[in-house]
Amino acid sequence: MLTVYESQTEQGTSWTVVSPIVFTYKVTETRHLLDPSNDTLLLGHITDPQQLEDVKKSNMPIKRFVVVDQEVYKIYAPKLIEYLEANNVLYKILSLPTTEENKTITMALQILEEVHNFSLDRRSEPIIAIGGGVCLDIVGLAASLYRRRTPYIRVPTTLLSYIDASVGAKTGVNFANCKNKLGAYVPPAAAFLDLSFLQTVPRRHISNGLAEMLKMALMKHRGLFELLETHGPMLLDTKFQADNSCLQAASQATRIAIGTMLEELAPNLWEDDLNRLVDFGHLVSPSLEMKVLPFLLHGEAVNIDMSYMVYVSKESGLLTENEKQRIISCMVGLELPVWHEACTMELIQKALQERLKHSGGLVRMPLPVGLGGAVISNDTSCEILHKAFVKWREELSDGSSDSN
Amino acid sequence: MLTVYESQTEQGTSWTVVSPIVFTYKVTETRHLLDPSNDTLLLGHITDPQQLEDVKKSNMPIKRFVVVDQEVYKIYAPKLIEYLEANNVLYKILSLPTTEENKTITMALQILEEVHNFSLDRRSEPIIAIGGGVCLDIVGLAASLYRRRTPYIRVPTTLLSYIDASVGAKTGVNFANCKNKLGAYVPPAAAFLDLSFLQTVPRRHISNGLAEMLKMALMKHRGLFELLETHGPMLLDTKFQADNSCLQAASQATRIAIGTMLEELAPNLWEDDLNRLVDFGHLVSPSLEMKVLPFLLHGEAVNIDMSYMVYVSKESGLLTENEKQRIISCMVGLELPVWHEACTMELIQKALQERLKHSGGLVRMPLPVGLGGAVISNDTSCEILHKAFVKWREELSDGSSDSN
Ligand SMILES: NC(=O)c1ccc[n+]([C@@H]2O[C@H](COP(=O)([O-])OP(=O)(O)OC[C@H]3O[C@@H](n4cnc5c(N)ncnc54)[C@H](O)[C@@H]3O)[C@@H](O)[C@H]2O)c1
Ligand SMILES: NC(=O)c1ccc[n+]([C@@H]2O[C@H](COP(=O)([O-])OP(=O)(O)OC[C@H]3O[C@@H](n4cnc5c(N)ncnc54)[C@H](O)[C@@H]3O)[C@@H](O)[C@H]2O)c1
Ligand SMILES: [Zn+2]
Ligand SMILES: [Zn+2]
Repeated sequence: MLTVYESQTEQGTSWTVVSPIVFTYKVTETRHLLDPSNDTLLLGHITDPQQLEDVKKSNMPIKRFVVVDQEVYKIYAPKLIEYLEANNVLYKILSLPTTEENKTITMALQILEEVHNFSLDRRSEPIIAIGGGVCLDIVGLAASLYRRRTPYIRVPTTLLSYIDASVGAKTGVNFANCKNKLGAYVPPAAAFLDLSFLQTVPRRHISNGLAEMLKMALMKHRGLFELLETHGPMLLDTKFQADNSCLQAASQATRIAIGTMLEELAPNLWEDDLNRLVDFGHLVSPSLEMKVLPFLLHGEAVNIDMSYMVYVSKESGLLTENEKQRIISCMVGLELPVWHEACTMELIQKALQERLKHSGGLVRMPLPVGLGGAVISNDTSCEILHKAFVKWREELSDGSSDSN
Repeated sequence: MLTVYESQTEQGTSWTVVSPIVFTYKVTETRHLLDPSNDTLLLGHITDPQQLEDVKKSNMPIKRFVVVDQEVYKIYAPKLIEYLEANNVLYKILSLPTTEENKTITMALQILEEVHNFSLDRRSEPIIAIGGGVCLDIVGLAASLYRRRTPYIRVPTTLLSYIDASVGAKTGVNFANCKNKLGAYVPPAAAFLDLSFLQTVPRRHISNGLAEMLKMALMKHRGLFELLETHGPMLLDTKFQADNSCLQAASQATRIAIGTMLEELAPNLWEDDLNRLVDFGHLVSPSLEMKVLPFLLHGEAVNIDMSYMVYVSKESGLLTENEKQRIISCMVGLELPVWHEACTMELIQKALQERLKHSGGLVRMPLPVGLGGAVISNDTSCEILHKAFVKWREELSDGSSDSN
């Protein structure tokens, strides 16, 4: 596949380079990740059996730089330290307030200073990130920059990062008041997923993750939708923890969510294809999220966007009234907001304009069709957008405001 | 080639993602790049004929953000502005002091602020960088970060950037007093090469570029070595400008240098293979260059490294005394330094230690064999390194210092 074509013109020589890079990474569900006898966190990313054996045989202690979300650190520090000590790891833990407001290049550079001082081998000593999507995104970017690419490992500790931020190649930080404006498309060496972290996640953040799960359900998987419709509230109550009744639904839901997500992301790791089902809920929400920061979580903003789009689908004849109501009820059952007063028609229109600019002149609006199917529409009329908005506000606003 | 393997374990599901990304870019020699009738700079990167036609037919003015090295701007501003005006381009020119000392993430962020305010379409409006390797490297990194990847165009204005910094995928800035510590592997959409910029380059900077050319000659191409041996001084005198006698040698030399460079870089765009002939001259030089900054140019430091390695080759029996002398004479003819007092045995050893750390535990030392051939050695003994050093200092030091 690699080629360098050379051609001669009057002006000199011209070369065309076609060069493939193959990204390989693992997304692995595991249990007891911080159990000292489980070596997944330290060695699970190594794919070459020979290399794995060499490392296991070697007497050299393993060296790891670990960045942890500060809140996560408060809860899991003892376990994490015990784990690293028990495995004789030379480690440095950097605990940081990786909040959405701090999701900046400044924090990435702060990490890089420390990484540099720690002096790791950029080939064999991946940087480990443990936290929610914010932490994983910042660390991922820092690692991608260091020596043009240092491997990193994602350990998601929120539901949203478990099923979404851990799965693809994207990293990023906010810039100039815009979401994820700077970043890279560099996947981790591996993502290690352990549901047990979720037991300490605030309820609202479970809902937050359920929004991205619902996104995949609506776009691609009726089974997942029905699962969320039926078991969503229970998953929320139990925080995906493994008591007998819940275990199966929880593991089914995460498996389908991640599997469908990977189906969409993997063939399009660098987002060259602009027609993306995973963009559902992400056309209007970036503007909304940044506008009301920190009042809406990412998944909440996404859900408000999806809720409006459900009305657009309905007005476009892609959903029946009953399907529409089932979706909205499901959202309510997941304790997700279905409307927000800051999400005005003006904001929607501006956001879609912005979208046009960055998606090759077409709006490429993913819309749900029935339950578990989708189209990508480029010709939804202003009239439909307006009618849907009016209906949406009428039916779902709490009446507490009549802005716009 | 793309695959997502899913497997079930007791712990849950594990997915392995194998996903290729194909990079395509052009390196094109042209003439009269800033002649208003030449549309290469504005449209030459577009490979799809349909898209090219659409752009040409459209009435929309072309929009371009241009970053120019300040020194280059002083000389070429009138031509550049005339070119952009004549082509009805909506443009913003940012002229910056892109020196090695300013090659920082701070300057990349400064560019990004301005890019953001300019509000370009990241798909169809590539950022143009015009300058030496420093400018191209900083802008390349900034563009790679913006929206996770904005296309950019390289216009090299020094010999070194013409034959080297324009050709591969690397971008970068210095960090923590280390060369190119932060960066990305993202090739430009295109590099447009025009030798006429070289006429204003200081003589010392022509020598500087000749060092990287000599690198490729020694590693891979006896013809290029002989060309530099015979015509090098003339190329230096004429700065590769096209009077009749020089034209052929100049265009031959650049063509071979770029062609051999691409042979090495293109199959290994992300430097996954650690055995790299293009690293010749780059094992010791990064430490030397940063230590004496700003007193040695990149190519000068590279040449000092190569000069020492020639002695290592000689001591290893890979070069005859005569070949060694021809190489050193050629370097002198190109007005390149062949020794530096700061390049002590201690510095060499530290640099090679550093190298070990970042190249999978092997030193992978490219060494010239005869004229135009090479090996990559992992077992050069300390004794040889020492003996070579002593000989090297004896024969080439100017005697003005006896440090180490
Ligand atoms: N890279 C991607 O593909 C991708 C995909 C989706 C979202 N994201 C990004 O992810 C971010 C949102 O991620 P998030 O929702 O995980 O937010 P987050 O990282 O801000 O975490 C949410 C909150 O939960 C706390 N927390 C995390 N784990 C905890 C635990 N186990 N117990 C108790 N508290 C815990 C955190 O301190 C934080 O206060 C956004 O910035 C979004 O842009 C990225
Ligand atoms: N990305 C890569 O693959 C790659 C490869 C090799 C080198 N590099 C980098 O390139 C840098 C060195 O590049 P360089 O040697 O071009 O240095 P440079 O960019 O500093 O330019 C050298 C000097 O020449 C001036 N100049 C540039 N063009 C001129 C012109 N046409 N007329 C008059 N003056 C001009 C500049 O202002 C500067 O003072 C280093 O930082 C090195 O790390 C990168
Ligand atoms: Zn999202
Ligand atoms: Zn170099």
